[in-house]
Amino acid sequence: MKDPQMIIPRTGIGLDVHAYAAEDSPRPLWLGGLLWPGERGLAGHSDGDPVAHAAADALFSAAGIGDLGTHFGTDRPEFAGASGVTLLAEAARIVRAAGFEIGNVAVQFVANRPKFGPRREESQQVLSDAADAPISVTATTSDRLGFTGRGEGITAVATALVYPRPAGAIG
Amino acid sequence: MKDPQMIIPRTGIGLDVHAYAAEDSPRPLWLGGLLWPGERGLAGHSDGDPVAHAAADALFSAAGIGDLGTHFGTDRPEFAGASGVTLLAEAARIVRAAGFEIGNVAVQFVANRPKFGPRREESQQVLSDAADAPISVTATTSDRLGFTGRGEGITAVATALVYPRPAGAIG
Amino acid sequence: MKDPQMIIPRTGIGLDVHAYAAEDSPRPLWLGGLLWPGERGLAGHSDGDPVAHAAADALFSAAGIGDLGTHFGTDRPEFAGASGVTLLAEAARIVRAAGFEIGNVAVQFVANRPKFGPRREESQQVLSDAADAPISVTATTSDRLGFTGRGEGITAVATALVYPRPAGAIG
Ligand SMILES: [Zn+2]
Ligand SMILES: [Zn+2]
Ligand SMILES: [Zn+2]
Repeated sequence: MKDPQMIIPRTGIGLDVHAYAAEDSPRPLWLGGLLWPGERGLAGHSDGDPVAHAAADALFSAAGIGDLGTHFGTDRPEFAGASGVTLLAEAARIVRAAGFEIGNVAVQFVANRPKFGPRREESQQVLSDAADAPISVTATTSDRLGFTGRGEGITAVATALVYPRPAGAIG
Repeated sequence: MKDPQMIIPRTGIGLDVHAYAAEDSPRPLWLGGLLWPGERGLAGHSDGDPVAHAAADALFSAAGIGDLGTHFGTDRPEFAGASGVTLLAEAARIVRAAGFEIGNVAVQFVANRPKFGPRREESQQVLSDAADAPISVTATTSDRLGFTGRGEGITAVATALVYPRPAGAIG
Repeated sequence: MKDPQMIIPRTGIGLDVHAYAAEDSPRPLWLGGLLWPGERGLAGHSDGDPVAHAAADALFSAAGIGDLGTHFGTDRPEFAGASGVTLLAEAARIVRAAGFEIGNVAVQFVANRPKFGPRREESQQVLSDAADAPISVTATTSDRLGFTGRGEGITAVATALVYPRPAGAIG
C-alpha cells in the first residue's frame, strides 16, 4: 500500500502451549489472567498462562519486533516468574513504544476444562485492562484428540491487529 | 486508535476439531458446508463440520461476544443438531445484530482427505452465501503427524475481520 | 462494508507441517528461508520450509484464490522442488496479479530447535525481500507436548492481510 495517508493495520499471530504440572504439584491454574481454585495448574516459567502469553506473542508478531523470548529472555531477569498479565501489560507497552497503536487481540484456548463461560467476561476485562486494548477470549476443545484432548496441556492461539502511529503523532 | 472517524477492523480467531465417527457409523462427512458421499463422517453434535464451526467461532471472537458454546449452548435447544451452515448463518446474524459488519473469514482445514481442490469453490460459495460475506477455504495436511496425520480427526482454524458499524448507521 | 471508497483489508490463515527426515538423511534444514547447517532436515517436497509455505498459504487464503496445492500442483512442474522462498515470491506475484496489495504476513513456528533468536532478523529480511512485503517470523515450543514437542516435526502458522487494489489503479 503506497498511499502515505492511509493507516494500514498489521496482523500478528501467537501460539502458546503449557503442559500440566504433576498431579501432586501445589501450582494453581492461571488461565486468561484469572486464578482457578481447585483446578490442576500448568507447568512452566512464570504462572504458565497460555492465554496471556499467546496474546503478548501476537502483539509482538504484529509489530514485527520478535517474541516472548526476545523481550523476556535471560537478559531481563526482572520478568523471570512474572505473571502472564504482567507480561502482557509490558508487551503492550513495548509495542506502543515501538510506534504502534493496538487495535485488538483475540485469543482462543483449547482445553477440556475449566468451564470458561461463566468467567469469560471477567477474563476479558482483566486482560483488556492489562493491555489497555480490547482482548477477546474464547474456549473450545479438541474433541478428546491430541495432547489437549488427553488432558496433558493447554494450547492458546491468538491474532492481533496493530497500527503504525502516524509520524509526529503523540502516543 | 483514538480518531472516532476511522473505522477500525477487529480480528478474530477460531479453531475447531472433530474426531471421526466409528468406522461402522452411518454418519456422512460434512465439511466446508458440503456433503462428501463415500467419506467417513465426523462425530459430534450437529453435523460436525469443523470448517463451518471454526468460521462461526472466528466471527464471534472478532466481535468479542463469546463463542459457539455461548450462543448455541443448552439454552438454545432449537440449534441442537443444526448444520454447520445453519450455525454459521446464525452466527453472522448475531454478529451483525451486535453492531458489526463482516469483512471476511478465512478457514484452513488439516486432513488427509477428502481431496478438496475440485470442490473448493463450491464450498466457498455455500459458506459465503450462509454468512453473506466472503469466506475462503483452503486445505493442507500435517505430513502424517499428530491426530490429523493419523486420520483420527480434522482440525480447522479460521481468522475473521469485522468492523464496528458507525453509530447511527443502518445495517 | 458497502462504502466503495473504503479499502477493506482481507485476512488469511495458513498452516504448514513437515516431519523431520530420517536421522541418516543428508537433507539439510531450511527454515524461515534460511539454511541451518548441522540441524536435522525436514522431509517433503521442495525444501520443506514450513515457515515459507505457511506464509504463502496465508497470502492465498487472504486473497481467496486457493492454496499451495491449487497453484503449485502437478500442472506446474516447474515448481516441483522449488525452494520455499521461490514459492513465496511466486505466491506474492500471483496474489498481486489477482488484484491485491499485500499488507503484511506474520508467521510463528513451533519447534524445539534451532535457536532462532540470533537469526530472526536475517530470516525476516530474506522472506520480506521475497514477497516484497513485511513478513515477521517468531518462534515458540509446545512445552514437550505433541509431535512438535517430541521432535517429530515442525508446525508453522501464519496470518496475512491483503487489500483489493482500487479499480483502475496501476499495481
Ligand atoms: Zn507460555
Ligand atoms: Zn465443531
Ligand atoms: Zn510445506
